[in-house]
Amino acid sequence: MEIVSVDPFYLKMPEITHAADGTQDTFLVRIRTDDGVEGWGESDASPLVSMAAYCCPMSHGNIINIRESLIGESVDSADDVRRLHAKAIRNGLDIQQIHHAYAAADLALWDIVGKAQGVPVYRLLGDGQSHAKLPYASVLFGDTPAETRELGEGLRARGYRAAKFGWGPMGKVDEETDIALVAEARAGIGDAAQLMIDAGIVWGEDADTAYARASAFADYAPTWLEEPLYPNAMDAYASLTARKPPVPIAAGEGAGQYRQAEDIIVNGGVQFAQIDVGRIGGITPAYRVRQLCEERGVQYVNHTFKSHLSVAASLHVFATNAEFGLCEYPAAGSPLSEGLASHVERGADGMVCAPGAPGLGVTVDIDAVREFHAPVRMEVDGTALGFDAP
Amino acid sequence: MEIVSVDPFYLKMPEITHAADGTQDTFLVRIRTDDGVEGWGESDASPLVSMAAYCCPMSHGNIINIRESLIGESVDSADDVRRLHAKAIRNGLDIQQIHHAYAAADLALWDIVGKAQGVPVYRLLGDGQSHAKLPYASVLFGDTPAETRELGEGLRARGYRAAKFGWGPMGKVDEETDIALVAEARAGIGDAAQLMIDAGIVWGEDADTAYARASAFADYAPTWLEEPLYPNAMDAYASLTARKPPVPIAAGEGAGQYRQAEDIIVNGGVQFAQIDVGRIGGITPAYRVRQLCEERGVQYVNHTFKSHLSVAASLHVFATNAEFGLCEYPAAGSPLSEGLASHVERGADGMVCAPGAPGLGVTVDIDAVREFHAPVRMEVDGTALGFDAP
Repeated sequence: MEIVSVDPFYLKMPEITHAADGTQDTFLVRIRTDDGVEGWGESDASPLVSMAAYCCPMSHGNIINIRESLIGESVDSADDVRRLHAKAIRNGLDIQQIHHAYAAADLALWDIVGKAQGVPVYRLLGDGQSHAKLPYASVLFGDTPAETRELGEGLRARGYRAAKFGWGPMGKVDEETDIALVAEARAGIGDAAQLMIDAGIVWGEDADTAYARASAFADYAPTWLEEPLYPNAMDAYASLTARKPPVPIAAGEGAGQYRQAEDIIVNGGVQFAQIDVGRIGGITPAYRVRQLCEERGVQYVNHTFKSHLSVAASLHVFATNAEFGLCEYPAAGSPLSEGLASHVERGADGMVCAPGAPGLGVTVDIDAVREFHAPVRMEVDGTALGFDAP
Repeated sequence: MEIVSVDPFYLKMPEITHAADGTQDTFLVRIRTDDGVEGWGESDASPLVSMAAYCCPMSHGNIINIRESLIGESVDSADDVRRLHAKAIRNGLDIQQIHHAYAAADLALWDIVGKAQGVPVYRLLGDGQSHAKLPYASVLFGDTPAETRELGEGLRARGYRAAKFGWGPMGKVDEETDIALVAEARAGIGDAAQLMIDAGIVWGEDADTAYARASAFADYAPTWLEEPLYPNAMDAYASLTARKPPVPIAAGEGAGQYRQAEDIIVNGGVQFAQIDVGRIGGITPAYRVRQLCEERGVQYVNHTFKSHLSVAASLHVFATNAEFGLCEYPAAGSPLSEGLASHVERGADGMVCAPGAPGLGVTVDIDAVREFHAPVRMEVDGTALGFDAP
């Protein structure tokens, strides 16, 4: 099959707030082949900046845009998808945004090959059966400990057996509030559930405070403490994990390329590596991180705060490893993220599986794409760079 | 002083080729304050993608554009410049391009504070006298060894006592050609000069070939072998440098944030760290890398393949360290890069110094800006994001 079109779309909610809620807009890419197979992908990235990486004029041999790297190429196999990943990243060597931007294209290409071959993406990636994962509801802390408890109770009522609370007031008031937030999250979700805490990089490079909080939170038995420090504060992560805090440390969502994930695993010493396929450059590099986790005895878990297109893509990466048992599962999305694609539903047992249908295995709702589409126009020197409507 | 305008400009030559020549276009930023002080900066980055990072609509609290981070802020001191760097990078946590894009703004802010205080930027950065550096001419290999020799002879005739040859056919034909390129570069520039070889990441993750070439090239006594491997191939760099090749290894130009420079120094084990202020996010993080180099006994050297605005900015970073004695000095630029700003000229002794005039110490030629300006128009959902003309 030959790639005949690569169409990036900017979708957004009518109103955007400062909340750390990644479902307020999205960056979507549709790729079509000459025999009519269509694939879709989504990045967790700035839509406008990513779109520019699809159409920017060439600066020299190391700044070549993604459309130019893909249009006219052949895509028939998993090897082709990997080859095109390498080509686009090489052509965009000096485009810092390339990994964020290309992620959506990589998902779309895996979707295409899976659809053409009639198999789910996880089977293209390697051997093995798909294993169910325990989905954890991913929500922001309430504005107060009491509101956080209510959120937890609501998730429990919806049948969640695991939940992560993050950002919001954590780390911004005082130690007492931090602990109260965790205590009320635990009270709300119940003792039987797994509880994860996402500190939202709030302690910067301060490994001592991160260690102190991990120790204090241990009374509430969280599965992990996530991103207590800046993503790149590697010395601080190394210092924190070397002290073996009583709550395991998780990080990695900020990894915008394979090396950053490798760095936080090998040098940062985290016990859970949280990888966002929509930032690291797609399924292709995420699968390499899964393999690194297997080699090093680290738990791989997805980071996902977008639509179920991203949930499905994330699950394919680690579906065949039974020991990687958790899945971040957005539980409080916007009408955009909830409506964009068919859902990876929880089963009667509360578990989720990578879709078994061909490709990524979810269906994009073109009406939702059109409803939330924000048309973009870019011109350089009077020349329009050309984006089609969905 | 209050920041009242932040204007990004896309400048380009009429024709752009695939050559690894970063002077074919540029990304320029002008910042103005309420009392009329004007600063300029330049990134080594895709102009269009970087421009989007100045105007992209907010996605959430971690995707906020650079203009929004800066307009209305006060800037009176070096501490303000550092504070604004931290603010803009934090607001753009999930904009992968943020460091490339912000670099130009960081340069412009140092320029402003230096001009307002009447001192050169190196004096704002720390104590100490400015020391002259030996400029090395930075050119691409010729298409053949013979052409490379001619290039070397030309540089020698122009008085260069050091020259770097890079990219072109290196690593793309066979070992014999690679060695002939180095031999003829040496023959052209002469035995008295320092010679640097830039392999242009051509051996990927193949540390064995890189080691073999470093050994073969040692006969021609190069000062370093630069970027024999992919920027992120950290295991390969570690393996190569651990074998102590007879030619020192240099790398780092791809560092798009402080951690990447720290990674190639600490984990990659390079002996020369080549930092591009126009990619790493400006003078602010580059100065931190200089300090890390001082702590670890690694040589800091600039990477610069843009206008003399970037040459000046680069020199300020390490002017006050007498032991960091080399300066990459673009010697074959385009009319755009040559004409954009006044030059940091070589002295009668062939050396270059950080300009002593206030700020960055070079003058941008507004006529050149207008001549090469490529107007950009970006619209999202019918709303123009607004770029002024220069």
